[in-house]
Amino acid sequence: MVLAEDTTKSASVTPSLTSSSGLRGKLNKVVLAYSGGLDTSVIVPWLRENYGCEVICFTADVGQGNGETDGLEAKAKASGASQLFIKDLKEEFVRDFVFPCLRAGAVYERKYLLGTSMARPVIAKAMVDVAKEVGADAVSHGCTGKGNDQVRFELTFFALDPKLIVVAPWREWDIRGREDAVEYAKKHHVPVPVSKKSIYSRDRNLWHISHEGDILENPENEPKKDIYVMTEDPEEAPDTPEYLEIGIEAGIPVSYNGKRLSPANLLAALNEVGGRHGIGRIDMVENRLVGMKSRGVYETPGGTILTTAVRELESLTLDRETMQLKDTLAIKYAELVYAGRWFDPLRESLDAFMEKVSATTTGSVILKLFKGSVNVTSRKSPFSLYREDISSFEEGSGIYNQADAAGFIRLYGLPMRVRAMQQHNL
Amino acid sequence: MVLAEDTTKSASVTPSLTSSSGLRGKLNKVVLAYSGGLDTSVIVPWLRENYGCEVICFTADVGQGNGETDGLEAKAKASGASQLFIKDLKEEFVRDFVFPCLRAGAVYERKYLLGTSMARPVIAKAMVDVAKEVGADAVSHGCTGKGNDQVRFELTFFALDPKLIVVAPWREWDIRGREDAVEYAKKHHVPVPVSKKSIYSRDRNLWHISHEGDILENPENEPKKDIYVMTEDPEEAPDTPEYLEIGIEAGIPVSYNGKRLSPANLLAALNEVGGRHGIGRIDMVENRLVGMKSRGVYETPGGTILTTAVRELESLTLDRETMQLKDTLAIKYAELVYAGRWFDPLRESLDAFMEKVSATTTGSVILKLFKGSVNVTSRKSPFSLYREDISSFEEGSGIYNQADAAGFIRLYGLPMRVRAMQQHNL
Amino acid sequence: MVLAEDTTKSASVTPSLTSSSGLRGKLNKVVLAYSGGLDTSVIVPWLRENYGCEVICFTADVGQGNGETDGLEAKAKASGASQLFIKDLKEEFVRDFVFPCLRAGAVYERKYLLGTSMARPVIAKAMVDVAKEVGADAVSHGCTGKGNDQVRFELTFFALDPKLIVVAPWREWDIRGREDAVEYAKKHHVPVPVSKKSIYSRDRNLWHISHEGDILENPENEPKKDIYVMTEDPEEAPDTPEYLEIGIEAGIPVSYNGKRLSPANLLAALNEVGGRHGIGRIDMVENRLVGMKSRGVYETPGGTILTTAVRELESLTLDRETMQLKDTLAIKYAELVYAGRWFDPLRESLDAFMEKVSATTTGSVILKLFKGSVNVTSRKSPFSLYREDISSFEEGSGIYNQADAAGFIRLYGLPMRVRAMQQHNL
Amino acid sequence: MVLAEDTTKSASVTPSLTSSSGLRGKLNKVVLAYSGGLDTSVIVPWLRENYGCEVICFTADVGQGNGETDGLEAKAKASGASQLFIKDLKEEFVRDFVFPCLRAGAVYERKYLLGTSMARPVIAKAMVDVAKEVGADAVSHGCTGKGNDQVRFELTFFALDPKLIVVAPWREWDIRGREDAVEYAKKHHVPVPVSKKSIYSRDRNLWHISHEGDILENPENEPKKDIYVMTEDPEEAPDTPEYLEIGIEAGIPVSYNGKRLSPANLLAALNEVGGRHGIGRIDMVENRLVGMKSRGVYETPGGTILTTAVRELESLTLDRETMQLKDTLAIKYAELVYAGRWFDPLRESLDAFMEKVSATTTGSVILKLFKGSVNVTSRKSPFSLYREDISSFEEGSGIYNQADAAGFIRLYGLPMRVRAMQQHNL
Repeated sequence: MVLAEDTTKSASVTPSLTSSSGLRGKLNKVVLAYSGGLDTSVIVPWLRENYGCEVICFTADVGQGNGETDGLEAKAKASGASQLFIKDLKEEFVRDFVFPCLRAGAVYERKYLLGTSMARPVIAKAMVDVAKEVGADAVSHGCTGKGNDQVRFELTFFALDPKLIVVAPWREWDIRGREDAVEYAKKHHVPVPVSKKSIYSRDRNLWHISHEGDILENPENEPKKDIYVMTEDPEEAPDTPEYLEIGIEAGIPVSYNGKRLSPANLLAALNEVGGRHGIGRIDMVENRLVGMKSRGVYETPGGTILTTAVRELESLTLDRETMQLKDTLAIKYAELVYAGRWFDPLRESLDAFMEKVSATTTGSVILKLFKGSVNVTSRKSPFSLYREDISSFEEGSGIYNQADAAGFIRLYGLPMRVRAMQQHNL
Repeated sequence: MVLAEDTTKSASVTPSLTSSSGLRGKLNKVVLAYSGGLDTSVIVPWLRENYGCEVICFTADVGQGNGETDGLEAKAKASGASQLFIKDLKEEFVRDFVFPCLRAGAVYERKYLLGTSMARPVIAKAMVDVAKEVGADAVSHGCTGKGNDQVRFELTFFALDPKLIVVAPWREWDIRGREDAVEYAKKHHVPVPVSKKSIYSRDRNLWHISHEGDILENPENEPKKDIYVMTEDPEEAPDTPEYLEIGIEAGIPVSYNGKRLSPANLLAALNEVGGRHGIGRIDMVENRLVGMKSRGVYETPGGTILTTAVRELESLTLDRETMQLKDTLAIKYAELVYAGRWFDPLRESLDAFMEKVSATTTGSVILKLFKGSVNVTSRKSPFSLYREDISSFEEGSGIYNQADAAGFIRLYGLPMRVRAMQQHNL
Repeated sequence: MVLAEDTTKSASVTPSLTSSSGLRGKLNKVVLAYSGGLDTSVIVPWLRENYGCEVICFTADVGQGNGETDGLEAKAKASGASQLFIKDLKEEFVRDFVFPCLRAGAVYERKYLLGTSMARPVIAKAMVDVAKEVGADAVSHGCTGKGNDQVRFELTFFALDPKLIVVAPWREWDIRGREDAVEYAKKHHVPVPVSKKSIYSRDRNLWHISHEGDILENPENEPKKDIYVMTEDPEEAPDTPEYLEIGIEAGIPVSYNGKRLSPANLLAALNEVGGRHGIGRIDMVENRLVGMKSRGVYETPGGTILTTAVRELESLTLDRETMQLKDTLAIKYAELVYAGRWFDPLRESLDAFMEKVSATTTGSVILKLFKGSVNVTSRKSPFSLYREDISSFEEGSGIYNQADAAGFIRLYGLPMRVRAMQQHNL
Repeated sequence: MVLAEDTTKSASVTPSLTSSSGLRGKLNKVVLAYSGGLDTSVIVPWLRENYGCEVICFTADVGQGNGETDGLEAKAKASGASQLFIKDLKEEFVRDFVFPCLRAGAVYERKYLLGTSMARPVIAKAMVDVAKEVGADAVSHGCTGKGNDQVRFELTFFALDPKLIVVAPWREWDIRGREDAVEYAKKHHVPVPVSKKSIYSRDRNLWHISHEGDILENPENEPKKDIYVMTEDPEEAPDTPEYLEIGIEAGIPVSYNGKRLSPANLLAALNEVGGRHGIGRIDMVENRLVGMKSRGVYETPGGTILTTAVRELESLTLDRETMQLKDTLAIKYAELVYAGRWFDPLRESLDAFMEKVSATTTGSVILKLFKGSVNVTSRKSPFSLYREDISSFEEGSGIYNQADAAGFIRLYGLPMRVRAMQQHNL
């Protein structure tokens, strides 16, 4: 029986280096990604019971909402943790994870702005730091075996400290669903949250909130109106458009209506105005890394505004082939971020491309928000490649000679002419 | 003086095969792409005068608007043409040019739905047919030397009949701008349109209308409210959303609210409803093939609806890697169409890919139109790869075993682990 | 103990649909990919013992060598199989699997010509047919858990019959290495091959032979001279070059020195001549799909000749952009084939592209074989885009006008000029 | 007549900024890319005669061969030049142009190692420097209107100094072919080289030599044995293989058989040994940027050795996806270099990717040269991702657990299973 149990474990524990069989008694300290909710609270006693180890809880503030960290330390300790570390990662998250993705134009499967995908590596990286600080030999998370987040956490652990043992209880134990968890919690004196859990599975940070589950699991169903958290219903949004100006330097947003703000503050301010106008709602069916499709609803008000702003400015600063290659690589970049491969030389190499290619994406864009839409109305850049003296229907500065076009077309089209001549035996 | 004139011509006439010097007296019949406007009307006497040739006018109906072909024959003849051919290409245009692009997901530089780009090859192809029918040895168009359309016309001529001489008067003659043209028209008894020409340069067909010129030439300027033709101002659009259902078979739209319609009729119906809700306005700075940037405003109401519908259905029918590759190739496909390379084996080969990859993109999508936005609310397909029994948070059918994820992550992340181990000397 | 054993099994059996626990007594008939070697022979009694099922052996002739199927039926039955199916798949293998890859230009990681990768799906497909014929509910193979072949077999099973249970004993049982297997074989009266097994792990078919293991496991070691099977040592190869001509139609080879041959016969003939000249030896470190690197040595004499021939002919028939896109997609195509995703709509869609793009790759190529090298000396095609009247340094036919180049360069370089002007404040 | 002449000029002079008509008397000083051969010698008096300007000659030493610069100054002055600048660019050429391309793996159309393409921008850049130094307002070159080199020169001029007027006499004047040129030279007292010009058109530098023209213009003809300059005939090469070791740091070669050498010296040494073994002969039909196909023969002995060395080392240091993306981008990189777009932000951005992705491509490779072939026999790297403890057929270190493969395959193949289930109505 013990053997069977261990074998089960071997399928769900993810140690980087050692064989996972017989870990009992071999783990000393585990750092757990802890939210205070039921899903992660029950892991605390379970880890202690199954591995005989000390459990250190870790909670990151990535902007998931006010008050979520209040009373968390007491709760963690009541669940059996020896310590709770809380870190405010908001500025690091936006500056080092969100803004590079924004500069890259990374959008997964045409719509998803990668809110959760970008947050996992910054959290996991902080956990590795805590593990080092406290001398932990393992890390743990509360992700299920169906989602992307397990991959994102574990790949970050692999990349940053391959010696760490990874324990993923939700892939391993017998607890199936909420009722089992509540029962287990009560048995182990873990405080059970009084507030009824949402019927939706959600993840929120400064960039976005995601919603999954319940009626969304049928992709034919329209989301109910009450699902949304960060955005006003477009139908209820103001009847008058609002204009705003975003300042950008080398592909990175720096100001809002002329006022320079820190990354996190800039994003927070845009979430407010964007949310008011119903900006950034996305309803999509996406392909998870683990091979299944899932349906999610996202709200990314500020992010949608910023994504539009950077793209529109690029229309002045990038030439045709450069934009095409950047857009092609953005698809790959988004895939890597979605897959949790942040700390991967491939993403870093793509980022070197993106940084260089965005060197002149500096300037400002005026956008108009209105009942769920964001549209550009003006763009300018000191590095603009647009020249009115060339483009104008009026005769220009002499830089562009229309007669050149004849030669251009004849040579550009030479392969087509030669092929046609061959077909016509000319 | 004569020599100088001939030499000038050699830079602007585009013959495929023969040397262009001394074409005077060597052209017998020229087929001219004729709109009845001033720009193409003045070409008729000019061709006759300079080449001593017969001029046959050709006008395609690609849905540019009601009444545009009324009285056209008389006008053409009054300008000196021997004949006017008019062909209704609307169904061919939508079926053979628009819908393949739609299936391919072809969008140029993130926004442009290729309205003019797709119309040029269908018109030029019809001109080649007329040239064959009447035994013409040359073709001519009214495009300037700054735009994309010259390329699109001429590449199609190259591809379909490389023996045809191409004459592009606007790259060649001394007429500079509207006033010169009016004067030349009067001198040659060409009927000058009474209606004052729009301050914008426009191109319209069943798929879209484009606007360029005037204040748009400064990309900082917001378009004036009176520029729009096919769409209602979103601020004036209905306060109540409208839902509609699009039926799709193998990536090609076939029905609207359950009613099967021909391609052109389907598009026309969607233009009406989309236009009413202010759908499909695009304001962009784009890179022309000839190397300059230009700023344009587009209205594509029905096209925007259809583009959304096909994309959303694909979220059910395409897996992750397939969607990524399709999206990457769509960028290339759009580039080729934009560049006028419709009759190019490369586009045709990409189309073979698109046709095959879309074989199961069959089903229907419900969209919600509201004040300028179109959003999906429901999608279904008999070939859907979405399975609620796998994706659900509830325990599923046994197809997906969460324990498998541990092995998946360990192998998927093996290169990252190995690299990290090397870095840590493990 | 039994429970533990079952649990272990749950990690190594790969059923598509049902939970794999407790399969004992639930499998009726298993079709086993059988070679007659020790590795697959021991699976026969093991399957019978562990699942109480009937075992039907299947052996494909994909050109792995003479005499390998002699006496195989007796051997299979002596091991406990109820039947042995042998199928000659040589022509199907070359025609339907090898030649499409050749047309696509598929080469994995710059060097590997996919010999084993292409053979697995044709074998697995035949196994699915046999399973249907005999009413089997499961299939099994002798691949280890470290290699690519397990993936290739199982993905083909998934794609062609998702109801089939897949049993992969080498991922599952306690047999570790050759000695365990010999012991198990003796205990179960399985005939053990008298010939000492090669120190190398090998896979051979009509296209290639691969070698792995032993001293090759250190990538610093040069392969020993006695490892090679299909090719002469270049140092011992003839001192006189040999010329041969390959005829190609639409990207598919059809003849050798003017003689039309069936696909398998053509390849066999080229293996002979190529082998004699030491053509097609490859020594490489490659990335397996399961995330690890491995080192292999391959011999692909005929395949190397054919790959060269098709590529060289394409230099006449493909234009620049088309070749670039084809080469880019060939990388993806090779990845899919390597990964066992033959019966995947993505590969099939890419194949539609490849077929179309190769429509004019018809003609012939003369190659020179000499001491390990194959080089083109002549190529011709009725669809050649090469025109001596254009390319010649002599003044040509008037098709190409050198003065056109000035206009071409000015427009092609316009974005660079505009950028430079902006930098110089012009 | 004057008008006609000016008009002709307007098609062949490539000024960046000003209209080109009426340049006579407006050019003060022209810097001419000068080789001392007939083609560029005749340009000197022609420029003086047609533009009334001072001509400054410029010759770069990029390793085109010994003695080529002897007596050059006297010759240039005898032709009418006021000055000759000679610059040794060999180290800059190899270090800043060749080695980045090598690191990028840039190969044009599968075979061409870009020898001429890389040399043009380094020469043109030096010309811009000279133009600045002497206060020239124009630059000139001796390229024809059919080739790639005109593009490479002129794009570099555009990018580095858009004010410079570009004069391309061979696109412009009436001199047609060698006889005209000789006559013109005699008439203007330009020293005509006594040595009969080769029947081939050649370009040589430290990286390669190219051969075009004469019987090569028919792609069916095998090159004659006497065409080759840098390499021994493989049939005459040594009968004994030679091994050599290349040391590489971050993708850049640094040593040969353990001896560190400067870039130019390293390349020169490898040219010697490679040439002796007949390494690096290429015979190909390629697509020029100006749309035509041409046939060329190249010799790149040292370059072929280095290209092999870097690629083979990467097989240890790059993972699968990274290698695939690098190889895909290498195609684009090569296209840009071939097209003369060295000083283009797109190439520079790709180079940022290449530099980052090559950070760990450090180590050494042993290669075997034998009668025209170069093959790897050994590779090692401190950053190798190859681990014998994982890859071995022997049971390993526990890092890789074979049972993990079952889960990996099930999830990797999930989209295929789901699709098959849908097809089978499961």
